[in-house]
Amino acid sequence: MDEIRLIDVRKNILSDNENQAEIIRQNLAVKNVFMLNVMASPGAGKTSLIIQTLRSLKEVLRMAVIEGDIESIVDSEKIQKEGFPAVQIRTGGACHLDAPMVTAALANLDLEAFDLVFIENIGNLICPAEFDTGADLQIMILSVPEGDDKVLKYPLMFTVCDVLIVNKMDYLVDSDFNLEALRRRAHELNPRLQIFEVSCKTGSGLGEWSAWLLDKVKTKLFTADFR
Amino acid sequence: MDEIRLIDVRKNILSDNENQAEIIRQNLAVKNVFMLNVMASPGAGKTSLIIQTLRSLKEVLRMAVIEGDIESIVDSEKIQKEGFPAVQIRTGGACHLDAPMVTAALANLDLEAFDLVFIENIGNLICPAEFDTGADLQIMILSVPEGDDKVLKYPLMFTVCDVLIVNKMDYLVDSDFNLEALRRRAHELNPRLQIFEVSCKTGSGLGEWSAWLLDKVKTKLFTADFR
Repeated sequence: MDEIRLIDVRKNILSDNENQAEIIRQNLAVKNVFMLNVMASPGAGKTSLIIQTLRSLKEVLRMAVIEGDIESIVDSEKIQKEGFPAVQIRTGGACHLDAPMVTAALANLDLEAFDLVFIENIGNLICPAEFDTGADLQIMILSVPEGDDKVLKYPLMFTVCDVLIVNKMDYLVDSDFNLEALRRRAHELNPRLQIFEVSCKTGSGLGEWSAWLLDKVKTKLFTADFR
Repeated sequence: MDEIRLIDVRKNILSDNENQAEIIRQNLAVKNVFMLNVMASPGAGKTSLIIQTLRSLKEVLRMAVIEGDIESIVDSEKIQKEGFPAVQIRTGGACHLDAPMVTAALANLDLEAFDLVFIENIGNLICPAEFDTGADLQIMILSVPEGDDKVLKYPLMFTVCDVLIVNKMDYLVDSDFNLEALRRRAHELNPRLQIFEVSCKTGSGLGEWSAWLLDKVKTKLFTADFR
């Protein structure tokens, strides 16, 4: 009676999204632009992290943001208020961004005028992990209140990302979040995952993250004989 | 340069899911079973709320849980530890439960033996809102650390739900979460939405929620001349 019964549902996911993503990557290489795809649950702090990173790097890089949202444009308004250009993709229900949507968004930016473009993906730990957007770097944010067991439940996201940002570290004190367990689980699944611990509220850890990102951006741009 | 450019992406969502959901509802009515669909972001507290509700109502109702997950069975193990039967649906990538999956799960339960079945949907504020599972009541959980602006960003979820549980109220003190703004936005979109404020950690507000749910369950079962 109390045993667990298990039903597996398998789903075919096939698409020419990969090809389109490769075209984006080639185009960005030609134009010497670095693109960053930011993924997370709703409310984990995607917009806050992007804004903090824009502020940190504004003296050294020319930046723009592609905002994905189902309905609203509130995040684009926040980016605009910071003085950076924003292209809003309104998916009208779709739960992730894909390469064709990003292609359409990039067509609205003069790529010669930017070094770094952020994509803020839809708030969702599932489908965004399956769709290559053509970005150079995939990052995910996990916030402390979400719990340390999310690696077990959303393994694909932790597998496809290059960087894990643990946000809302200011909540750690009152919480049973086990940072060591998270690190262990994440690295078992993805040994190359870079982990940063930050608080977008207090600012802790953001300097280290921004410096690391700047180094990555420079490496791409200089390797390509950029300017 | 800093204006917001907008790209709309529309998507056709058509399915015979609705028909299958209606068949489930008729079957549950015949068997005198009430079914509850619990939806939320990852880490908002779905499993915790279900476990607290099982504990509150175990003397008066016979209950079981259908657990949806992409990969793991950790939530089913928690339910089993509480002494209740769990059926695990492993979607293998799909970001929501649909009526055919729930039909398969219900086939693994002796419905004559239960009054109340919980569905714990996949952690996602988007797609689960689009798929009728055949449940009698749709509830969503929003946790305080996620922020009070989620109504604007995930309006469909707030529209299809009967109940909004605001969880992790113990985090409210240190937060800029505006409970009044949330209530106003949610009721503008969905005036019939019942809102409960709880903390699954401290137990606050759970008695009121459980009593309200018990009343709903009894109304359905007695109206149908149950026993």
